[in-house]
Amino acid sequence: MGKRKISIEDIARRAGVSHSTVSRALRDNPLISSQVREEIKQIAREMNYVPNAIAQSLQNQRTSTIGVVVTSIADPFFAEVVEGIEQIAKSAGLNVLLSTSHRDVEQEIAAIDNFHRRRVDGILVADSRISKQQREQVAQIAVPTVVINSQIEDQPEIFYSVAIDDRLGAQLAVEHLINLGHTAIGYLGVGDRSLSNQQRLEGYRMVLRKAGIQQIPNWVAMNDQDNVRANDVTTGQKMLPQLVTAGVTGIFCYNDMVAVGALLACHELGISVPQDLSLVGFDGIALGCYVTPPLTTISQPMLELGRSAMQILLDLLAEKTVENRVLSPCLVKRGSSAPINN
Amino acid sequence: MGKRKISIEDIARRAGVSHSTVSRALRDNPLISSQVREEIKQIAREMNYVPNAIAQSLQNQRTSTIGVVVTSIADPFFAEVVEGIEQIAKSAGLNVLLSTSHRDVEQEIAAIDNFHRRRVDGILVADSRISKQQREQVAQIAVPTVVINSQIEDQPEIFYSVAIDDRLGAQLAVEHLINLGHTAIGYLGVGDRSLSNQQRLEGYRMVLRKAGIQQIPNWVAMNDQDNVRANDVTTGQKMLPQLVTAGVTGIFCYNDMVAVGALLACHELGISVPQDLSLVGFDGIALGCYVTPPLTTISQPMLELGRSAMQILLDLLAEKTVENRVLSPCLVKRGSSAPINN
Repeated sequence: MGKRKISIEDIARRAGVSHSTVSRALRDNPLISSQVREEIKQIAREMNYVPNAIAQSLQNQRTSTIGVVVTSIADPFFAEVVEGIEQIAKSAGLNVLLSTSHRDVEQEIAAIDNFHRRRVDGILVADSRISKQQREQVAQIAVPTVVINSQIEDQPEIFYSVAIDDRLGAQLAVEHLINLGHTAIGYLGVGDRSLSNQQRLEGYRMVLRKAGIQQIPNWVAMNDQDNVRANDVTTGQKMLPQLVTAGVTGIFCYNDMVAVGALLACHELGISVPQDLSLVGFDGIALGCYVTPPLTTISQPMLELGRSAMQILLDLLAEKTVENRVLSPCLVKRGSSAPINN
Repeated sequence: MGKRKISIEDIARRAGVSHSTVSRALRDNPLISSQVREEIKQIAREMNYVPNAIAQSLQNQRTSTIGVVVTSIADPFFAEVVEGIEQIAKSAGLNVLLSTSHRDVEQEIAAIDNFHRRRVDGILVADSRISKQQREQVAQIAVPTVVINSQIEDQPEIFYSVAIDDRLGAQLAVEHLINLGHTAIGYLGVGDRSLSNQQRLEGYRMVLRKAGIQQIPNWVAMNDQDNVRANDVTTGQKMLPQLVTAGVTGIFCYNDMVAVGALLACHELGISVPQDLSLVGFDGIALGCYVTPPLTTISQPMLELGRSAMQILLDLLAEKTVENRVLSPCLVKRGSSAPINN
């Protein structure tokens, strides 16, 4: 009693910055650098600042529900990512709602918008395709949003992100094939202009260049469909013969589903894997262990991707300072790759 | 103008039933028989009854969103069911939100409750475990609810349902093995007290009895975990050796994931499928085509399960009379089953 309540103006005066900078910093808006945010929060703590009643009442209107947008639940990759999200959400007492975007930016925006109208506390988006151009359409989003494996280079800066290092993954895959003695190495990708396909292809090219291996255009095969991930098996099946005709002895596949499709095509064509052809996938989904031979792959820490994204969201909800994260994949050697058979 | 507005009382008087019966019939409450509902609706149409303003305004408060509860998105079975749901929902302009129950009735009730608080227009629940005992906990649900493959015998009568005929599926699987000359036929199940496991086991027993084959207790192997479906592969892997020791030459597996686990165990133990042992799965998920040999299975019309459930929900929202549906599975012969090798 008697003691005047500390206002945002007081903090702004002490910090020597504007009212709106303080307001943004306390809301953990990424437009303010993390250093400045921390400094302002420190000053607010020192001054015993208490957020005002409206802010508190808004806070009390929390629904304990977060929304997660995935491209498709038919993709086992997202099943594991969501499991990681649910682990952390559950321990924090939060409900998780899911919605699908089918790799389509309009459906993604509609899903986010619907979550927002359903009053979720925060949103996670896997494989986001929202660029700065669409920023206005999502400008109304007043809840913290974290993107997992963004598929667009110019992601709006209001989003935080957790991503896998796709170039490193491609490097591990192609170096593994080179170490086994392969020099005619193909890339079997998906032509959907996604950032991950682009970066895995770049990684593949970079390693061949560094190893002094001449690059043959026919060693790269991609379908031109912008299709749902569930059809990646079909892509692998359809494109495999082209690469075999081009004379490759090892193939780095965009993901495990594509590699499974390539493996099925090999079974049909009487090509022995790994004796005649080595295959390397990407993702590390359980399915890779069920096929014969089991797939060598670049394993993404799928659970950890989900857990990290959810942890960032929790930190944002607790008004802590957060940073974007990039996680590293690793090589898992199984039966589908072997030394070249001369 | 001048013409008096027709009320529910008027319809009740004409139909010779109570006010609440008319009210329930017009809301398509399943407590009223479908015949009586149709008769009352017909009378209402003849009298040019217009629902009152409050009902209309409630109707205008629709959110164009439906909630779907699945046990886990790690299960490819539900991925296809949800695809069927989304196809119909999309054509009707409805958004679909998903939530997971992890085969746990408390989580299922929490998911339904959360959907209700998020104001969805209707709810679909796959593998529901809510019994009449839990009825009070879901009594507050004021939106139409349809259950897909209910896992409980005494399902609350406020739910509508679409289900697969599990006994017929089991019959097709075991008759297929008998037709191939097998007489020592095992059942590899999941001991989670689910209705589908119970009914598939009953179907298995019924066919053996009819065929005059003596039933050996060791021919039935089940784990006792009440676990998430994603671990069915592990169940199959762990339980397979027991059945091999018991001397079976053919196994009907609870589902394809269990069969994949059994197949992996065979690979490890050097048992050739189908030369030494025939395996039959259940579900018809795509994964069954990716393993070597591809799985013979009892295919559930997964897309159709989702489509039917969503269509029933749409009919309920349009206040049409609906009926529960039971769909038939069919045998899909692939490489994992063959005539017995004497």
